[in-house]
Amino acid sequence: MNRGSVPADTPLERRLHGDLPLTDAASVAAGIPADATVLTSGFGSVGYPKAIPLALAEDDRDLGLTVVHSGNVGAEIDVDLVESGAVDRRFSYQSSSVARAATNRREIAFSDRNASAIGDEVQYGGLVDPDVAVVEAVAVGEDWFVPSTSLGQVPAFVEAADSLLVELNRRQPLELQALHDIYRPGKPPNRGPIPLSDPGERIGTTHVGFDPEKLVGVVETDVADSTYIFRDPTADDLAIAANLGSFLAAEMERSPVFEDAVHLQFGVGSLGNALMGELKELDFGDRDVVYFGELIQDGLFDMLDAGRLECASATSMALTDEGQERLFADVERYAEDIVLRPADVANHPGLIDQFGVVGVNSAIEFDIYGNVNSTHVGGKRMINGVGGSADFNRNSLVTVCALPSTLDGGDISRVVPMAFHVDHTEHDVDVFVTEQGVADVRGRSPVERAELIIEHCAHPDFAPDLRAYLEGVQRQDNHIPHDVERAARWQD
Amino acid sequence: MNRGSVPADTPLERRLHGDLPLTDAASVAAGIPADATVLTSGFGSVGYPKAIPLALAEDDRDLGLTVVHSGNVGAEIDVDLVESGAVDRRFSYQSSSVARAATNRREIAFSDRNASAIGDEVQYGGLVDPDVAVVEAVAVGEDWFVPSTSLGQVPAFVEAADSLLVELNRRQPLELQALHDIYRPGKPPNRGPIPLSDPGERIGTTHVGFDPEKLVGVVETDVADSTYIFRDPTADDLAIAANLGSFLAAEMERSPVFEDAVHLQFGVGSLGNALMGELKELDFGDRDVVYFGELIQDGLFDMLDAGRLECASATSMALTDEGQERLFADVERYAEDIVLRPADVANHPGLIDQFGVVGVNSAIEFDIYGNVNSTHVGGKRMINGVGGSADFNRNSLVTVCALPSTLDGGDISRVVPMAFHVDHTEHDVDVFVTEQGVADVRGRSPVERAELIIEHCAHPDFAPDLRAYLEGVQRQDNHIPHDVERAARWQD
Repeated sequence: MNRGSVPADTPLERRLHGDLPLTDAASVAAGIPADATVLTSGFGSVGYPKAIPLALAEDDRDLGLTVVHSGNVGAEIDVDLVESGAVDRRFSYQSSSVARAATNRREIAFSDRNASAIGDEVQYGGLVDPDVAVVEAVAVGEDWFVPSTSLGQVPAFVEAADSLLVELNRRQPLELQALHDIYRPGKPPNRGPIPLSDPGERIGTTHVGFDPEKLVGVVETDVADSTYIFRDPTADDLAIAANLGSFLAAEMERSPVFEDAVHLQFGVGSLGNALMGELKELDFGDRDVVYFGELIQDGLFDMLDAGRLECASATSMALTDEGQERLFADVERYAEDIVLRPADVANHPGLIDQFGVVGVNSAIEFDIYGNVNSTHVGGKRMINGVGGSADFNRNSLVTVCALPSTLDGGDISRVVPMAFHVDHTEHDVDVFVTEQGVADVRGRSPVERAELIIEHCAHPDFAPDLRAYLEGVQRQDNHIPHDVERAARWQD
Repeated sequence: MNRGSVPADTPLERRLHGDLPLTDAASVAAGIPADATVLTSGFGSVGYPKAIPLALAEDDRDLGLTVVHSGNVGAEIDVDLVESGAVDRRFSYQSSSVARAATNRREIAFSDRNASAIGDEVQYGGLVDPDVAVVEAVAVGEDWFVPSTSLGQVPAFVEAADSLLVELNRRQPLELQALHDIYRPGKPPNRGPIPLSDPGERIGTTHVGFDPEKLVGVVETDVADSTYIFRDPTADDLAIAANLGSFLAAEMERSPVFEDAVHLQFGVGSLGNALMGELKELDFGDRDVVYFGELIQDGLFDMLDAGRLECASATSMALTDEGQERLFADVERYAEDIVLRPADVANHPGLIDQFGVVGVNSAIEFDIYGNVNSTHVGGKRMINGVGGSADFNRNSLVTVCALPSTLDGGDISRVVPMAFHVDHTEHDVDVFVTEQGVADVRGRSPVERAELIIEHCAHPDFAPDLRAYLEGVQRQDNHIPHDVERAARWQD
């Protein structure tokens, strides 16, 4: 790959460098073929392009685009562009009610990919035939740009696409460059291992280089990200945090891996944010606390500000407005402890293994035997997408699934007899945590797992029915006794 | 870890070195506590201890052992020891009808783990509290031994256990030492990346070192492995091989990853063996053909003998009697092209990614939306175990699920509306191959996948019913339309 003409260690003081094809969003949108495959930046609802997607949404041609991004993007793509009917096919994560409805009506052909893998899948794996990459930047030159608030699979997308459009967003601080560490693994089979020995280490550049012939247009914008809104922690969230804290405290005593340091990851969302926030209540002793995850949320900032977090590595920062203001007010100080990496590094299976991560992710539901559904209600209705949860659930040394035992004010149990969509298999999850307690199912057979999960995690309103199901099926001579029709009626 | 006192590059010419506690199997078995956790060597049905498990099977105490191995072991463990009732709990793969029945009757608490991960899970992850490692060796000293026909998770098990028993098997050639490359990643979080840049490279030693205080006994044996029996390729196997060959030929043209070399992996079994054997019919052009997998089977030997395989990396060799004779007759020549690695290296997620592997694995069944069940018939009855299939399905650049479209002489479809046990999710498998054809579902939505799978992979006897199911559920506004009760009746 072309690493571009700006060395990694030169702090930039202006945004536009060299002779650039400055233009406007409507003009570049008009130049995108009606059936193009468009790869965009954006992850954790930040750092996505805004003006060009909006211009495409307003384009009066009959568009049938394939839109590819590696994580959550904001309303300009997830609402406006989707609502305009311009998107025929889409990868890989969504979060608006508009996008969710279009996916479930199957007006959009949606394919749900793992966040770590979609870069390689686009670049080498034959997932799509990419045309144009549309990325947001804080600075741009003739053969390089500095991404804004997220990285995701931007470097892979830029390498894979035939042409490149850059949105230079003056609202995003130029100092964001200090966060980025863009390492490119190169093409298999000669890419070699990723030479990262510590989550705080920097092994790449602050910019993405590209073949200058790819750059078709630079559009200037001044628009804020659609940031996250997290609810205040509920009583259930705090009870889950306390249960998780007890588990982590015992686990740190148990394993020599956690003797000097503990490496943590938390999934995105209000619960994840609350769990990150409650970490400060935990006694880590002399251990270094390191975050090696996909997303940094507001909850982690208190730990950072108190100097209790050694460092945090992620591919994006899923922040509230307030969190983004806090970051923007002092980017360079935060950059001493925070490193943003491309998703194929941040979520890399080998690195998650290397650091012995304790991964904590939520889900829609899990079943009594330990299978986890994090995407489809009833096995059918898509909510958001798998994101990077499988990257961490599959490769963490200790994998925790944490969620409230019920939803809809207690009317529905999140512990079910059988999950009818499985995103994380019984082979991958070690520990389940709800506000009721902790089920540590490591080394347990399926029926033993069911007993522990019903006893420690199910809500008392549902535990008797789950126990009756388990007792009913145990007459079978089967390793995983089940009555699928009865399990199906549970979900009616 | 203690690497022991013998350097990696000293070819050994005798089996016993130094002052060793030579004893007999019955004596050491009597010294194993009745409720011990026993970690054994063995993978691919070879290289497992024989005499000590048999002595435990004949022990007249009331034993309640936990037995841990990382792959398939032979009859002494999988039949005799299980049949004796000495095993209360067991990980992680089985293949005899005796073991299968005991697991499904739940007389043994069985927990099915991924082959890549069980070493770390035992050593660091809290899966069990290990007591004794029992390993087969071809040579042994006071603080090292040379494993025999397989590696699996032996090094991790030896590091984790409090004490060590070695079976020195004189039937296994001493020259097997030439195959081994034992690299130890060390403890997270400081283990660093595995420095392997080529599957043929050697980065470790030919022996496993250990703390000399752990060695309790050395037992001499002279017993052959329970080798595999593969059926001759059926017409279906050959049709699957031909379909896979067409897909691979197109794929090699498509991606720059396969420009100079193609890295392949095949799952164990008669079909996998047949597919390996048929590789020689494929025109790879000037490309290097490299095997980076878990198991080497007889089918690969013709490619090796013809000099058409650059090298083969695996953790074991699942060979027939004839295949093992062929190997044993000329171990040192085969060792020029074959490297055996511990399973945490051979199946390492980061290395599978690094080499851009095309992984080809079989299963029990897959559903129309692309979920794969490789372990439990009807979601309930355990067959063998997940083994390393999820390691390769999850991390390969291109993941292929290959199997006949029916079983039981055509009476049962292996393509089903809904898989009721999922070992490999819809996010992981790219291509399905049966004797009917190839469904390349990359980039396809769930309903598009269903259409391709029914059209190209289902048997014509079952395609109309599958199509009727899909048409029936398509009236729903769901991303993955399903009627679980109807899908359940399909399996009745």
